[in-house]
Amino acid sequence: MEKTFSISIHEGKPIRCKAALCRKAGEALVIEEIQVDPPQAYEVRIKILCTSLCHTDVAFWKLDSGPLARFPRILGHEAVGVVESIGELVDGFNQGDVVVPVFHPHCEECRDCKSPKSNWCSRFCDDFVSNTRRYGMASRFKDSSGEDIYHFFFVSSFSEYTVVDIAHLVKISPEIPVDKAALLSCCVSTGVGAAWKVANVEEGSTVAIFGLGAVGLAVAEGARLRGAAKIIGVDLNPDKFEIGKRFGITDFVNPALSEEKKISQVIKEMTEGGVDYSFECIGLTSLMEEAFNSTRTGSGKTVILGMEKQMLPISLGSHDLLRGRTVCGTLFGGLKPKLDIPVLVDSYLKRELNLDGFITHELSFEEINKALDLLVKGETIRCVLWMDK
Amino acid sequence: MEKTFSISIHEGKPIRCKAALCRKAGEALVIEEIQVDPPQAYEVRIKILCTSLCHTDVAFWKLDSGPLARFPRILGHEAVGVVESIGELVDGFNQGDVVVPVFHPHCEECRDCKSPKSNWCSRFCDDFVSNTRRYGMASRFKDSSGEDIYHFFFVSSFSEYTVVDIAHLVKISPEIPVDKAALLSCCVSTGVGAAWKVANVEEGSTVAIFGLGAVGLAVAEGARLRGAAKIIGVDLNPDKFEIGKRFGITDFVNPALSEEKKISQVIKEMTEGGVDYSFECIGLTSLMEEAFNSTRTGSGKTVILGMEKQMLPISLGSHDLLRGRTVCGTLFGGLKPKLDIPVLVDSYLKRELNLDGFITHELSFEEINKALDLLVKGETIRCVLWMDK
Ligand SMILES: [Zn+2]
Ligand SMILES: [Zn+2]
Ligand SMILES: [Zn+2]
Ligand SMILES: [Zn+2]
Repeated sequence: MEKTFSISIHEGKPIRCKAALCRKAGEALVIEEIQVDPPQAYEVRIKILCTSLCHTDVAFWKLDSGPLARFPRILGHEAVGVVESIGELVDGFNQGDVVVPVFHPHCEECRDCKSPKSNWCSRFCDDFVSNTRRYGMASRFKDSSGEDIYHFFFVSSFSEYTVVDIAHLVKISPEIPVDKAALLSCCVSTGVGAAWKVANVEEGSTVAIFGLGAVGLAVAEGARLRGAAKIIGVDLNPDKFEIGKRFGITDFVNPALSEEKKISQVIKEMTEGGVDYSFECIGLTSLMEEAFNSTRTGSGKTVILGMEKQMLPISLGSHDLLRGRTVCGTLFGGLKPKLDIPVLVDSYLKRELNLDGFITHELSFEEINKALDLLVKGETIRCVLWMDK
Repeated sequence: MEKTFSISIHEGKPIRCKAALCRKAGEALVIEEIQVDPPQAYEVRIKILCTSLCHTDVAFWKLDSGPLARFPRILGHEAVGVVESIGELVDGFNQGDVVVPVFHPHCEECRDCKSPKSNWCSRFCDDFVSNTRRYGMASRFKDSSGEDIYHFFFVSSFSEYTVVDIAHLVKISPEIPVDKAALLSCCVSTGVGAAWKVANVEEGSTVAIFGLGAVGLAVAEGARLRGAAKIIGVDLNPDKFEIGKRFGITDFVNPALSEEKKISQVIKEMTEGGVDYSFECIGLTSLMEEAFNSTRTGSGKTVILGMEKQMLPISLGSHDLLRGRTVCGTLFGGLKPKLDIPVLVDSYLKRELNLDGFITHELSFEEINKALDLLVKGETIRCVLWMDK
């Protein structure tokens, strides 16, 4: 099967195209014509084919103060695209390649990128505030008045074209439908990676997942594929149980309905002493602690995926820890993007990994504010926006 | 090589022998003649050949209130002995076998004993208050007035004879010198196990050890054998650096001399960003947190071995955790006694594992109060008591 994507090549020249700008915190995105400069060394300019929306986009859309609140900005970091042109010193990417941009860098050269134990690129990970990876605050975007537009997490996919550093770009097989591929850019990789690579869930084991958003459902999907015997979903929204069944959730706990008992107590009773693996996908320290307390003495492992917003610490009983429990945290599911996203693509193509189930809505790029609204209201798992429809 | 140990067999009958009784918290132990009953089903009566003293003995010797303060009691849990007689339903042990009693049970039959991931015997581990493993408060010891004497952690090795459940007994090769074997009963196994089995320290890695008592030194020994490139010892006692060098300590940090900087900061500067593995061997939550903060972003692993005495929680930065760090706790170094102690015996016999260096003093059983004093004053790593000398 051969696929081709129609792109006009403007190699070495700026491109004028449409992008959805966030001009003020919490206000509707505005689709404007912008200018996208050519890629510099180690950069690639890509035509976005599909983008989806993630809660991190919402968080930065709402952010109205502090050094990270920047406007105008092009948000968006879950996407798939096709290479339009490459900058100098770019190896491994060519015009027409289907690529997934990823917020989490993978330089392939630093000590940590070379280590099998880490996905924390120590060359690049500490800087998450620059516009471009190797050029600091230099932006590749300008609005119609010539003003610089801020990038977002080195991706900025709410634009017909964007410029991405090669450390943030993964070439994938063109066989995978592009709307499905977009999901591998953030949420699904994070959840499946946490189950496979960080927890290493094995056949017959028991799992509890706190928070059944896209990441939590992806953890379930990862655990289901590994043959977990019991996958308990914890969520305040009772509709999530039906949705979760598609991803392997076998049991459901609604904290609102077990007020007299702690969730950890309920889970321990459901599993003869606690689950083998628990995952926190919300970012609340109280839930991280409940996830920890839900695991089995002697071998229980808790994986923290949720980003806590107030820099609060997590408090763990040192005796509970001493009795053979493990807690670990992970970004991007412990995956090395360039190595592991192609593995997930393969798994989808072999009809193992369920990606279709995550996509509850598909809209055109023009309808981006409707998509944002669906996500804010919790009415969608993933809404994919098609740039050309 | 054949070794035989002279024992008088009193199969099925009580034995009268000497034991060091703790009759009151913090007072000198009293060597008295006691009666040791025959072993019941699943029990073995052993003649102790050597015992050493551990800080847990000291803690319970000092303990003067609460349900765990019990007198008269026979303390002692690091030892080696020889089987005198066996009770009913005992398989795998015969008269004359050299055996190591272990406070940490291993029933070999429960779900957790059968799992490769756990050393927390869920059948027995939760009960650490009984005298005998399967008979509750039934004691096998009586003093000269016929009063029951309390056991200690299912071992009670400060006695010429003791009765131990088979879940707490490991048969070992008689080729290992018995004073060295006694060390495998608690501290050395705990430390080496934490480095080998829990952390899985690999060649070329960096390690920080908080607290250079016997357990901390055993962690160093385990890391040294795995080929760690840098092993940083942290201790307030400057003499520990010289001692530690024998066990592979390459660098030393004295917290008293770096008051203006946190220990974690000093360690990060010594290791270009943090150690791969840190171990807390004291039991202070402040040090557990410093150990956590000393590890490398993306892959750092902290192992908690120290038993915190006040049931305080440990507080971890959730963002530091999220960046790929792991914290785990362990009892008995994650080892399954019956499977793993023989591996350590082999390692000693192959001249790999350094056990000799731990033994700084050897005394006769009659000198037990002198041995206790040496340990309390921090003047010994391990003092071995010979029962027959
Ligand atoms: Zn995202
Ligand atoms: Zn890197
Ligand atoms: Zn001990
Ligand atoms: Zn067991």
